Amino acid sequence: MTFSYDGSNFYGYQKQPNKRTVQQEIEDVLSKINNKKITISSSGRTDSKVHATNQKAHFDLEKKWDLDKLKITLNKMLPDDIYIKNIKKVKDSFHARYNVKKKIYLYKINMGEYNPIDRNYIYQYNKELDINKMKKASSYLIGEHNFRSFTKTNPNEISYIREIYDIKFRVKNNILMIEFIGNGFMRYMVRNLVGTLIEVGENKINPKEIKTILESKNRENAYKTISPVGLYLKDVKY
Amino acid sequence: MTFSYDGSNFYGYQKQPNKRTVQQEIEDVLSKINNKKITISSSGRTDSKVHATNQKAHFDLEKKWDLDKLKITLNKMLPDDIYIKNIKKVKDSFHARYNVKKKIYLYKINMGEYNPIDRNYIYQYNKELDINKMKKASSYLIGEHNFRSFTKTNPNEISYIREIYDIKFRVKNNILMIEFIGNGFMRYMVRNLVGTLIEVGENKINPKEIKTILESKNRENAYKTISPVGLYLKDVKY
Repeated sequence: MTFSYDGSNFYGYQKQPNKRTVQQEIEDVLSKINNKKITISSSGRTDSKVHATNQKAHFDLEKKWDLDKLKITLNKMLPDDIYIKNIKKVKDSFHARYNVKKKIYLYKINMGEYNPIDRNYIYQYNKELDINKMKKASSYLIGEHNFRSFTKTNPNEISYIREIYDIKFRVKNNILMIEFIGNGFMRYMVRNLVGTLIEVGENKINPKEIKTILESKNRENAYKTISPVGLYLKDVKY
Repeated sequence: MTFSYDGSNFYGYQKQPNKRTVQQEIEDVLSKINNKKITISSSGRTDSKVHATNQKAHFDLEKKWDLDKLKITLNKMLPDDIYIKNIKKVKDSFHARYNVKKKIYLYKINMGEYNPIDRNYIYQYNKELDINKMKKASSYLIGEHNFRSFTKTNPNEISYIREIYDIKFRVKNNILMIEFIGNGFMRYMVRNLVGTLIEVGENKINPKEIKTILESKNRENAYKTISPVGLYLKDVKY
């Protein structure tokens, strides 16, 4: 199942007791039509306020459904900030999280004047950034690295090694868009990377410093975790 | 004063008792720094949920202010869904409503698949429209006409005659943008015009029918008032 959501009014993707979450909303609706409790497995969680344009998840139903009809039924029952884009049958062995080959995250930054209309969708930085220096800094992140400096320490994490295939920069109408393409991203990783790249773009640190931070494998050396507003899970590939 | 706002959480621009309105929020802040109650006069009201990228208003202060400082102070005090873009001195004779020469409204329609992230900012029509026919229909609206068919009947209205200078169509990524440029627009006028143009784009009525509706000067002949979601007061010229 491919689905999109506006993260503004959710306590993130993953279900938690007494909180409005994307997973809970979808499971409630699916369980109702399935007449039996369903748990869905997504490609991974997203933080509170983070949006998704193509999040993916798998689940099992008790009975056969026409998939077009299932999509229509679910969309009618779901709240208006979640939308099911596509549902297709997969092999029993398929797992939406373990089979991920590639994930794409997008971060949007407004370098122009504050815009109240975009405030929940584009991070309102409202200052110029030196994009060439940010590009230079990002080049040190591409490849297979231990990203411990850029993620929340997690005692259950087997390995902090991830591969970033590419980091793309694009500017349109003063909006800077940074796309991260990799085989996986840990908790706060994209937000820590953007926070640190902004320090470079502000000329507070040297582009090469990012290499030093990366190699230190120490979270304390990276800069602040940027606001979740502006972050989109853009796509997941299997 | 030029200002922008996200209309999503307002009961429109104009103040009303016990409702959250744009005018009230701005007047509260201005009155506080002025130590005396202030009433602002805008270029006109906007309906609940309608956004503005360049709304304009005038007001008088008790004491002289450095205008850059005033802008910064107001923006600090205002809620995050209103933003003051620019403040400049005007002649005593200036009136933000009576001196309007041109108003520009923009309406955004998503002809592609439902997008939860844009649901409060782009009208989710989610079907194809015949834009050439809509363009043809809109050509009958350009010029000076009695727009009584396309507005709420108002016993205080001196004249239903307005001039539309141009109606521009643009499509990008399945988003249809219709821009209305005129010397003034009455209550629900843009929303009635868009609602009727959509009937044309759906091939339910002929483009020329819009001329018949216009000439009938009867609100009952026009089609539905479209959702305020998707409507932006884009600019006001003096």
